[in-house]
Amino acid sequence: MTLEFDMNYEDAYREVYEMVKPKYKLFTAGPVACFPEVLAIMSVQMFSHRSAEAKAVHVDTLERLKKFLEADKGEIILFPSSGTGFMEASVRNTVPRGEKVLVTVIGAFGKRFADVVNSNGRKAVVLEKEPGQAVKPEELDEALRKNPDVHAVTITYNETSTGVLNPLPELAKVVHEHDKLLFVDAVSAMGGADIRFDEWGIDLVFASSQKAFGVPPGLAVAAVSERVFEIAEKMPERGWYFDLPLYKEFNEKKKGTPSTPPLPQIFGLNVVLRIVEKMGGKKAWLDMYRKRSGMIREGVREMGLGILAEPGYESPTITAVVVPEGMKGVDVYNAMRERGLELAKGYGSVAEKTFRIGNMGYVTFEDIREMLDNLREVIEKLRKK
Amino acid sequence: MTLEFDMNYEDAYREVYEMVKPKYKLFTAGPVACFPEVLAIMSVQMFSHRSAEAKAVHVDTLERLKKFLEADKGEIILFPSSGTGFMEASVRNTVPRGEKVLVTVIGAFGKRFADVVNSNGRKAVVLEKEPGQAVKPEELDEALRKNPDVHAVTITYNETSTGVLNPLPELAKVVHEHDKLLFVDAVSAMGGADIRFDEWGIDLVFASSQKAFGVPPGLAVAAVSERVFEIAEKMPERGWYFDLPLYKEFNEKKKGTPSTPPLPQIFGLNVVLRIVEKMGGKKAWLDMYRKRSGMIREGVREMGLGILAEPGYESPTITAVVVPEGMKGVDVYNAMRERGLELAKGYGSVAEKTFRIGNMGYVTFEDIREMLDNLREVIEKLRKK
Repeated sequence: MTLEFDMNYEDAYREVYEMVKPKYKLFTAGPVACFPEVLAIMSVQMFSHRSAEAKAVHVDTLERLKKFLEADKGEIILFPSSGTGFMEASVRNTVPRGEKVLVTVIGAFGKRFADVVNSNGRKAVVLEKEPGQAVKPEELDEALRKNPDVHAVTITYNETSTGVLNPLPELAKVVHEHDKLLFVDAVSAMGGADIRFDEWGIDLVFASSQKAFGVPPGLAVAAVSERVFEIAEKMPERGWYFDLPLYKEFNEKKKGTPSTPPLPQIFGLNVVLRIVEKMGGKKAWLDMYRKRSGMIREGVREMGLGILAEPGYESPTITAVVVPEGMKGVDVYNAMRERGLELAKGYGSVAEKTFRIGNMGYVTFEDIREMLDNLREVIEKLRKK
Repeated sequence: MTLEFDMNYEDAYREVYEMVKPKYKLFTAGPVACFPEVLAIMSVQMFSHRSAEAKAVHVDTLERLKKFLEADKGEIILFPSSGTGFMEASVRNTVPRGEKVLVTVIGAFGKRFADVVNSNGRKAVVLEKEPGQAVKPEELDEALRKNPDVHAVTITYNETSTGVLNPLPELAKVVHEHDKLLFVDAVSAMGGADIRFDEWGIDLVFASSQKAFGVPPGLAVAAVSERVFEIAEKMPERGWYFDLPLYKEFNEKKKGTPSTPPLPQIFGLNVVLRIVEKMGGKKAWLDMYRKRSGMIREGVREMGLGILAEPGYESPTITAVVVPEGMKGVDVYNAMRERGLELAKGYGSVAEKTFRIGNMGYVTFEDIREMLDNLREVIEKLRKK
């Protein structure tokens, strides 16, 4: 009567492990390398998401995120989805069908926000910049003067495809002057760049687990303003899966989410938020990101390579490097991969002339030095070709 | 310059582990206990979801699911969401706004499907049965005669709240006679009850990772018919996150999903589908489920307790047990928990007079015997009170 587990199923594990085992040191755009302590908690045995134990972790994670995002006035929401889920949520919960949203685009993920707006029956008015450029406050002001009928403004805080960090606090001020809702895609920013939800007056800022927090993918997190819930509660046809007031109700009454959340990723995020504290708090953690990205920029500049981001707007989490004339970004990517170092290919309209170096998650200064030493050799070899 | 990892962050892991470490043997309604081989793969280091390695696992998982669901004609779709995501997808991709869907309700999760239909601006026409009852083909036929204008019919294959398995093949025939789309919520059925997608003519059948497959939560899977894509491609305002044709396109062109998927859960599901093969294939695996649930029903009947499900429609994955007059379901749940065995509380309108015993995931026959021995003692003690 124990036939089911007579066999040893270790083979099933080993076959899959052979397909997915670590082969490279990662400088990816996400999913990124995770802390060993995070990976360890991912393999804990499961249990009911409605149990007292799961509720305790849910509440503790919300509190830690609230502190990290300085969002005393915000409601923290956890979605069982990728970050894009919050693009859909922001639009469906606050913008009436057929109405307009000003979408600022500085790369591929700004374009995605426009697609999400349009595919949900709203109209995206696009303010688009050249790859490598940030949105400037005066440009946003002008766009809002020309389009006074938009309900909301979307800003990609950190554009993963170009390695540009938008000047969010300055842009937020402009949005407030025009009294519009402010939605911030912080997918590759949160955990790597500062976010002050209350002070900057953000209405919705979201991210994914698999970027600067260094947790496996599957979980999206956001801080949401009271104003969003006031509008959402009256918004018809906002759906069920991304119904923000329903999530707020479940935070309060059930200390959980309406449908089953990715428990391992929540546990992993909780571990990382504790690591942040043990490292000395948010400032120390963000300093680490600044140092990492600074080392990378300094290193590639010393090799005579260009940075795509305009000066003053460089991302603390990912660097898009411009290759010299006659060289292709993907050649650098492939040569580094052969050396056991996985960077990220160029992306979107600048795919050919760039490659990218992420520094998110479990990356040490020593790893960065090793990567730069290899990159120097690779570039020299490619130059001689 | 190595300040970031000078410290040992094992404490961060240990603090979270203390909150979530295994305390009970699980007979839950989901998340359920996972195979050790699945938990082991959950802790593998992450990497890009657009890498060759991730693509290989994606394609292999689709093929294994296709075989398991006998869905040669179906497209397998993986969502970074809970199972409920597919409720939203089915409605938004195929039913025009303002139009009707016949939602059959035999418990809490049928009600959720009605909520999803209505909150997305469609109209749910509800055929509802008493808790414990299944939908009968003649009732469905009558409901469809009365409502010839519905676009689709939803069926909860296995209702987790009442432990009832609907007669899906017979109901599917009725749906075809009326030429309607057939959406099947198989969240607590897939992996525990047979599904023959092609033979039964299903249009969309979905489930979650954390039920009868015994994988942590965070991933939803479905098989979708060609007819659904034909309708969806012309459906306006179907959104981005659950846009089925977009997922099909990404399966084909990118061998992945439009936004970042929960890689660890995909790896875990792949491990389980290999375990199914090693156990002798789908039939042997489903026999295991039949034996487990049969042992549980036999055991509780011997104690003089009732089964909520009407005879002939008992679930192979979860049993709702009716407690004797004067006893409360939650008292049994609490007493069992004190003995280190976590069952599931009663749910929905029958919450007070029932408790539930799940047998999904990593549950051995030995575990079931131990659970029944304890339950016998608990019931005897409660009877003497």
